[in-house]
Order: sequence, then structure tokens, then C-alpha cells
Amino acid sequence: MSRDELSDLLEEQQSLHAELKARGGKLDITRGKPSPRQLDLSRELLSITVPVHAADGQDVRNYGGAKGLPEIRAIFADLLGVDVDHILAADNSSLSIMHDLLSYAMLHRIHGATEPWGRQEIKFIAPVPGYDRHFAICEHLGIEMVPVEMGEHGPDMDEVEALAADPSVKGMWVVPMYANPDGVIYDEETARRLVSMPAAPDFRIWWDNAYALHHLTDAQPRPLPILQMAQQAGHPDRVFEFASTSKITFAGDGVAFLASSTGNLDWYLSHAGIRSIGPDKVNQLRHATYLKDAEGVRALMRRHRELLAPKFAIVEKILGNRLGGTGVARWTHPSGGYFVTLDVLDGTASRVVALAKEAGIALTPAGASHPLHRDPHDRTIRLAPSFPSEGELAAAMDGVATCVLVAAAEKLLG
Amino acid sequence: MSRDELSDLLEEQQSLHAELKARGGKLDITRGKPSPRQLDLSRELLSITVPVHAADGQDVRNYGGAKGLPEIRAIFADLLGVDVDHILAADNSSLSIMHDLLSYAMLHRIHGATEPWGRQEIKFIAPVPGYDRHFAICEHLGIEMVPVEMGEHGPDMDEVEALAADPSVKGMWVVPMYANPDGVIYDEETARRLVSMPAAPDFRIWWDNAYALHHLTDAQPRPLPILQMAQQAGHPDRVFEFASTSKITFAGDGVAFLASSTGNLDWYLSHAGIRSIGPDKVNQLRHATYLKDAEGVRALMRRHRELLAPKFAIVEKILGNRLGGTGVARWTHPSGGYFVTLDVLDGTASRVVALAKEAGIALTPAGASHPLHRDPHDRTIRLAPSFPSEGELAAAMDGVATCVLVAAAEKLLG
Ligand SMILES: Cc1ncc(COP(=O)(O)O)c(C=O)c1O
Ligand SMILES: Cc1ncc(COP(=O)(O)O)c(C=O)c1O
Repeated sequence: MSRDELSDLLEEQQSLHAELKARGGKLDITRGKPSPRQLDLSRELLSITVPVHAADGQDVRNYGGAKGLPEIRAIFADLLGVDVDHILAADNSSLSIMHDLLSYAMLHRIHGATEPWGRQEIKFIAPVPGYDRHFAICEHLGIEMVPVEMGEHGPDMDEVEALAADPSVKGMWVVPMYANPDGVIYDEETARRLVSMPAAPDFRIWWDNAYALHHLTDAQPRPLPILQMAQQAGHPDRVFEFASTSKITFAGDGVAFLASSTGNLDWYLSHAGIRSIGPDKVNQLRHATYLKDAEGVRALMRRHRELLAPKFAIVEKILGNRLGGTGVARWTHPSGGYFVTLDVLDGTASRVVALAKEAGIALTPAGASHPLHRDPHDRTIRLAPSFPSEGELAAAMDGVATCVLVAAAEKLLG
Repeated sequence: MSRDELSDLLEEQQSLHAELKARGGKLDITRGKPSPRQLDLSRELLSITVPVHAADGQDVRNYGGAKGLPEIRAIFADLLGVDVDHILAADNSSLSIMHDLLSYAMLHRIHGATEPWGRQEIKFIAPVPGYDRHFAICEHLGIEMVPVEMGEHGPDMDEVEALAADPSVKGMWVVPMYANPDGVIYDEETARRLVSMPAAPDFRIWWDNAYALHHLTDAQPRPLPILQMAQQAGHPDRVFEFASTSKITFAGDGVAFLASSTGNLDWYLSHAGIRSIGPDKVNQLRHATYLKDAEGVRALMRRHRELLAPKFAIVEKILGNRLGGTGVARWTHPSGGYFVTLDVLDGTASRVVALAKEAGIALTPAGASHPLHRDPHDRTIRLAPSFPSEGELAAAMDGVATCVLVAAAEKLLG
């Protein structure tokens, strides 16, 4: 494009932007929250009758049972492909288990460690872009994060292996399926290198399988048997695996899971058992009663897909129509999960977010997907299509496209 | 008693003990768990329909709302006598809030602190006897506990004031009503001294009102307005107050509360908000719908009393009949709560617990009510009458009395 053509484009897009501002709408595509229609799928959970006794005879209304109820653990053991002895069921948030593991490791000695992590300068490997709340935990605890760029099947593994060789590197964040925010699926080769690579004896991977069942297409890969792979690689304690019902039933009101080696689970329970007398077993039995079995969960996920897939199609279509071939934007085409990552012209992501805000469209802040909110290229924007209605989403995406073009033209014109 | 009389007594009680052993019964009065009949009082909670929206319009099935639902907070604000702005509703365990506050203070700077507690040698004041799980948190975190003997209306306050003057003393455990395990009710004078005494700027009281509503008689004191008292004394941040529905509805499956100054609540939320996206609002609304209002809770507590008071009467009667006037035992006559503290002849508590075990009666280990399980007099035993049926309880108490007499006679005979 010549400068003149660019100026024309800028003018045209600016007037579209001015219209949006004038219209004074309010749209929000910041957080990956399920929509009310998705939540309605599990309406039965709000009134289902919970039995007094679990299958093993224990009264779920009373104290006890630190590891959680066998029936809900069995369902997720099946879904994740882990042994039921290697999974425990906790309360309503997997994020809180991730946090607690890290805070226990800071205060106490995780096995393999010579002293609590809080008494050392430690580092975490942070594939970027990644989940802002993972990074926030490290930031909050003063743990340095080393970003590694994501590729098509996971992060650059040569770089990861080189970092892990440093004994002060103690952990790594991984969202192995339909990663937040770029939708990447870790392949078997990447996983094998992760569990095999030499690392400190107290090095752990936070393998957050938050979206393991959240398919958007017919290609529905099974979660990798990461615990077995770690065991076979001679590092049985390397992986903490997480999942929850937050994006299956209700967000933040369900059951969360930790799967790991017996040694790791016992270590977790030795601390969690000091923190509280036990998890909410009534809610665990409520979920087991409602979900029934692994196939019950899969059937529910197909209904989520029916509601979510059209929204991802809208994003794809509008970005394609408005930005395709312009060379100023590139975006992911996820086959699962909750997000689309939009990469705009380098140095314009913050400007796009600011322009969108003026136009009444709330976007996740630029930099949110990077440690300490620092996107070195100022280019990555996370889009969350799940919550708004299809109409709102279409309007928002159209507005975002306008902002991307305005910011790009401004930049190119200098 | 002469040596001969003592020998006769020992022989007689030993044969009763032998009978118990021969009978091979199994009784458990270790933990303060509600009985199945108490849990049945709230059977409705297992099937009640939860509305989708809270009174303020938010969808309880989705993420958000760190402070908890206004409707459930309002009920407990009313019951505890605190302002609704000064109370937050969390998940299913108040113990976990107590733990998290302490662990946040270890890792971060609680306000008033110059550095995280984890980087200092700090101490807690521990009135004894006290709640074993409080002490376990300190023990687990390597925090030294300084025991102070309980009197009739709280601990020896001269001693507490002297300890609090030490700047390394940062905290204190208090169960202000119907204390676990001795049933003591802190009086207003004790409370006033606690909130007024000079102490480190980061000194906090863990005011655990777990039994504030758990009356066994018609004398039903209102919880002390401890937050207001602290405010008036010029120490608005001194107190963290706790409560939960664990012994109101279901144990470990309900809603827990933290009441404190705005500064303290904000500090808590600044960490809890990193740990998870928010509490289980569905369960909060379930509880608010079921309990309705403060009077709803009080009515429910009257029904608990109907089930519990006869059990405490059984303990009183059997201990009185079997041990009254012997001079080898003394016990509390609580007007609320879940426990009776039995003090036996100095140096015999462990022996009583061991004898009871032989007779098939599980008692809380001797020393459990003291920091690091060290009862310097080996005299205090905690009895928990709530869980067993009346028949089981009577049998257990009779057996305990036998063991107390055997151990005392053995000891006195040298
Ligand atoms: C990757 C990832 N992990 C964890 C969570 C939160 O899970 P939970 O609700 O179980 O705490 C989210 C929510 O957005 C997420 O995207
Ligand atoms: C004094 C005291 N605080 C707290 C608790 C536990 O409360 P929650 O179930 O809310 O964690 C108990 C339970 O026995 C208790 O006795």
C-alpha cells in the first residue's frame, strides 16, 4: 500500500471507529466465562437431590475424607486417563490447588528439595503467551519467570531443556490442551521431552488440563497419559496434573482435581490436612450424581460445543473478512478451549485495546498473557468469545477489526 | 483412703475394666462431629432448589464475587453483631481461612509488619487447653507457641499482657465462646484487655467464634462486639473473627466467614484473589435460601440443642455418679459448644487413654489440647459427646470412669 492508500484506509476506519464511539455500546470479551446458556445446560445441578451416603458408605454431610469421594474421582480418572488412586478431588477451584502447592513448596520442603523454595532464588519456565492467573501466582510470590515462545506443538523444547538444566529452575506452567490463550495442543514428542529432560530433583510441571475435554471439532485427542509417561521416564514425581468442572458445570462452584504420583499426593495431603478437615463432599456427590460417568461428561461437553463452536466461527469469519490478507494481523484457529489469540502489527496491541475501550469494547489488557504483563512485541491480544451472545460477539469483533486497522495504519504512517 | 481401701478399689475397677475388654466393644468419642440425627435436621439442604441469581442480580453459577454473596453475609453479620461490610463469605472451612491468613502473613507483609513473618522468629500465645487444629497450624509452620493457662473467663490476662509486650509475639488463638475444649466464655473485661493491650503493630488475634450460636442452656450470651471494641480501643486491625456453618448445617460442606476491619479484609482478598477466582456462590445461595435469616439459624440451633443437651447431661450424670467426691477427677459443665474437659489425677491422662483403648473406647490422645501435644501435667482429656448415640455415650462414659479410677489407684499405690 502506498502512503496515500494508507491515509485513505486510516480515514475510513477512523470514521467507523467514530461511529462506534457515538453509538456508545458496551461489549465485553475479556474473560473466558461460560455464557448463561452454557450454564443452563446444568440447571439440574441446582435442584438435584444428593444422597446422604457415598458409595463407600460414608456420610457426606460430616467431616472427613481428605482425598475426596471415590465416585467423582473415578469419573475424572477415566476422563484424564489416570489411575483412580492417583487422583484426588478437592473443592471448587483448580487454581487454588496450583496456588497451594506452590505456597506449600515455598514454606516447606517439597521432596527432592534441600530447603523450602522461599529460602532460595528460584525460577519458573513460562511458555508465552500463557494464562495470566498462572503468572500472577508467581509474580505474587516473587518467583522469576523465564518466558519461552510457544510453537505449534508446545514451547521451543531446546530452550526449555537448556533452562531446566539450571538447578534454580524449579517449575514450569503448562496448559497442554487447547492452551490458554493460543489453543496449542502439546504433542507426544514435546511431552516426552518434558518428562525426560534432566532437571533439579525438586523440579515440577504444573500440567493444567483445564480444557482437556473442551473440543470444538471432531478431532478430539485424548489427554496424554502424562503421569505414566513421567513414570516411564524415571521421573514419577515430575508432574502435577489439574482439572476441574468449572467449564463443564458451573464456573467456580464445582469440583477440582489433582492427579499425581502417590508421593506427591501424600505430600499435598500432609499440608492440605493441616489447612482444613476435608473437602466439600456433598458437592462432590452432587456432581457425581449429576454427571454419572465419563460418558455423561462427554455428552455434556458436546452440548457446550454446540453453543461455543458457532461463536468461534463468528470470530473466524469476521477477522477473515476484515483483516484477511492485510498483513497486519494473524490469529489462531483453535480446535478447542476458550480463546482466540490475535496477533496484531508489532507495537500496536496496547493501542488496539485503548481504541476498543473508547469504542465501548472491553478487551483483555495487552500484555496480560505475558509474565509481569510485559509483551516485548506489544502484539498479542486474547479474545474470549464464550460469554457474549452471538450478536454481541459479532459487533465486538467487527469493532476490534476496525481498531486493529486504525492502529496499524497510524503506525505505518509513522 | 487407706492403702488397703485403695487396693480394693483398684481390684474392683480392674475387674470392671477386664469385663469391658472381654466384651470387645467399639466406641469413639474423639472428635466433635455432629451426629447423623443433627445432620438430618438440615436434610432439606440436600435437595433445595437454588435460584440462578442472587438478590443483587449476579449469576451465582459463574465466576466472580470475591467477597461472597450479600445475603449470606447479612445473616452472619446479624448473628455475630458485625457490620455487613466487615464480613466476607468464603468456602467450606473457617479453619482454612485461619490457615491461609497465617500463611499469607508468613510469605507476605501483613500490614504493620516490617517483613514477612516467615523471615522472623515469631511466637503465638496459646491459651491451654485449646483446639488441637489451631496448634497444628502453628506447629506445621514452625511458629513457637507460648501456653497460658485458662481461667474461668479466659486466659490469665496479666500473663497475656506481659507476653504481648514482646514484639516477636505476633498472634494469639482465641475461641471466645464455649471454647474448645473447656467451654469457657471470654468475658467483656478479658476481651477489652485483649483489644487494648500494647502489642506489636502486626499483632493479630485469631478470634474463632466457631461455637457462638451453640448454646446448651437458656443463658444465651450474644457474641461480644469484638470488632467494635477493637476499633474503640484504637486497634481496628487487631482481630480476625471466624465462623462457619459446619456445626449448623453440614460439617465441612457449608460456608465459612471472616469478619474484620476493611484494611484486613482487603489485605486478605489481595491474596485470596490470586489463589482463586472466587468462592462457591451456589453453595452460599443454597445456604441463604435454606437458613433464610438470623432467626432461621437460631431456630435450627434450638433443635441441635434438643439433641445435644441430653448427651451432655449423660456425661455429667455418669461422671458425677462414678467420680464425684473421689478427688481424682474434675470436669467442666459447659453451657454450650461441643466438648467436656476432664482433668484426671496429675500424671495419669495418658494412662487413662491407654486403658480406654484396651477397653475399646477411643479417646482424643492425651496432650492433644496442648501445643506440640505436651500437657505438662498429663492431666487433661477432651471428651466429645456429640457423635455417639445416647446409649453408646453412656457406655463410653462409664468405661472412661472405670479407667480414670484404675489409673488413679495405680498411681496412688505407687
Ligand atoms: C488454564 C486455566 N486454568 C485454570 C483456570 C481456573 O480453573 P478453576 O475454576 O478450576 O480454578 C482457568 C480459568 O479460566 C484456566 O483458563
Ligand atoms: C474451635 C474450632 N474452630 C474451627 C473448627 C473447624 O471449623 P470449619 O469446619 O469451619 O473449618 C472447629 C471444628 O471442630 C473448632 O472446634
